[in-house]
Amino acid sequence: MITKLAELIDLLKTGPGKKLVVACGDDPHTIGAVARAVKTGSIKALMVGNEAAIKKVATEHSIDPAIFEIVPEPDKRRAVKRAVKIVREKKGDYLMKGLLDTAEYMRAILDKEEGLMAPGKTLSHVTVIEVATYPKLLIVSDVAVLPNPDLGQKVAMVNYCVETAHCLKNDKPKVAMIAAVEKVNPKLVSTLEAAVVSKMAERGQIPGCIIDGPMALDVAINKESADIKGVKSPVAGDADILIFHDLEAGNAFFKSLTYFANARLAALVAGTSVPCVLTSRGDPEESKFYSVVLGALLAK
Amino acid sequence: MITKLAELIDLLKTGPGKKLVVACGDDPHTIGAVARAVKTGSIKALMVGNEAAIKKVATEHSIDPAIFEIVPEPDKRRAVKRAVKIVREKKGDYLMKGLLDTAEYMRAILDKEEGLMAPGKTLSHVTVIEVATYPKLLIVSDVAVLPNPDLGQKVAMVNYCVETAHCLKNDKPKVAMIAAVEKVNPKLVSTLEAAVVSKMAERGQIPGCIIDGPMALDVAINKESADIKGVKSPVAGDADILIFHDLEAGNAFFKSLTYFANARLAALVAGTSVPCVLTSRGDPEESKFYSVVLGALLAK
Repeated sequence: MITKLAELIDLLKTGPGKKLVVACGDDPHTIGAVARAVKTGSIKALMVGNEAAIKKVATEHSIDPAIFEIVPEPDKRRAVKRAVKIVREKKGDYLMKGLLDTAEYMRAILDKEEGLMAPGKTLSHVTVIEVATYPKLLIVSDVAVLPNPDLGQKVAMVNYCVETAHCLKNDKPKVAMIAAVEKVNPKLVSTLEAAVVSKMAERGQIPGCIIDGPMALDVAINKESADIKGVKSPVAGDADILIFHDLEAGNAFFKSLTYFANARLAALVAGTSVPCVLTSRGDPEESKFYSVVLGALLAK
Repeated sequence: MITKLAELIDLLKTGPGKKLVVACGDDPHTIGAVARAVKTGSIKALMVGNEAAIKKVATEHSIDPAIFEIVPEPDKRRAVKRAVKIVREKKGDYLMKGLLDTAEYMRAILDKEEGLMAPGKTLSHVTVIEVATYPKLLIVSDVAVLPNPDLGQKVAMVNYCVETAHCLKNDKPKVAMIAAVEKVNPKLVSTLEAAVVSKMAERGQIPGCIIDGPMALDVAINKESADIKGVKSPVAGDADILIFHDLEAGNAFFKSLTYFANARLAALVAGTSVPCVLTSRGDPEESKFYSVVLGALLAK
């Protein structure tokens, strides 16, 4: 089990690796992150975008543009469609967005005829977070995509996070279903759904992990808090995975950690036919790099 | 305008100050925090609880129990009722709980006949947070009491926070209505209510502050994020007050800051006839002390 984002690199296979397809990767952050991934020797990159801009930015940042395969397509909308098509035709293993609106990127992914949705799957998002004040990585969902997940969608979120944990060599991750409180309260849907998902795991309906909830964030990640509140649970104080009730809670958590606690992260859309890197515009280059590495590890 | 919790002390009036009534203050954290407040010379304390235990714990921690007035009442339930009665009879200015279940404390406060509810007021909670990674104090609501505030309750939450800001000598606080995104989205109630509350402020219906929203947490507290996302707003990047959509989001934010970013705080129930200190069992003594000082400042 790895406990730092930097250890993701050790998990990459050597030799000819996965091919990343980047839509509109014309900006320094994306080019820097992708170049660093290519230099591991385990990831190849195909850039679909403005060829002149890509070459210029790369050269300005002391990166040899020849390390990338480039498919010239200066129009942003056409570039992202082309990138998705290349992945659909299995000429690439996974996707990333560069300087492109998230809405445009998601529209291309979600397109029913020409997109990357896996049939019948829930579209969600998985973030792996490293913060100095927790001894291991936290895998969390959903901080970016699904506004009001219902019970079935929460189960899908758990499964995506568990799959990610297994990929990080954590065979039996501890999943905390986060609510504002630990006691089940009929007025708080978060506590009801957390209880139901926990019981589903107990019945063997969600394999490969240990699930408990409802519990507030402090109980999930702090043993002393769990003891003070008298919560006895194999998950409390030692969570690997945090499932939030809705996007409001997940987003508040995620922004708190990145802006107030200097967290680093790797983030991907989940539920698509291939991994699709999705970081925020404000995320540092380091987080984009880790996202590219995590995508390569999750790509089939 | 003060920017650190330690500056709260400078706002206290000298001379015979407010009288705090503590229910069941038998534990070292409460006794330590209250003693420190009494030693400022501006707060008096009346302890309703187990007299022997209070004297023993105080002495063990080198605190002279004679600095407290003590009303002996070893039974916890009777002690909290007695403490509330003393405040109702105006023999005390505000309330605090010691080693007592929050549910028991709230029950005594909420009691229709003998409690401390102000008629027609929304019961909520205000937390003042200090974190090293933000240059000023953040006043937030609701992280502890109100599960699913509706529009009217959100307006009440704003007003409680604004009143607190004024008390901290911030005459025109900037209020951010937090949602997961900045664009109004009919599927996200958080964004609709944020937009409505902002407009109400524009129409002069919520005086004494500047309100804007919806905006995600990063835009509220980080100028660069606001610029990247193109959000032009007098509040963005400079918020004093954060209003969360619901308890799930508020609680996730609050626990993230206290557990991952080492935040300190002062916290009170709002909407009661007098300030009622309400901190978490796990909060450090320092936070209890600041809560006692803030309560004295807000007490009429």
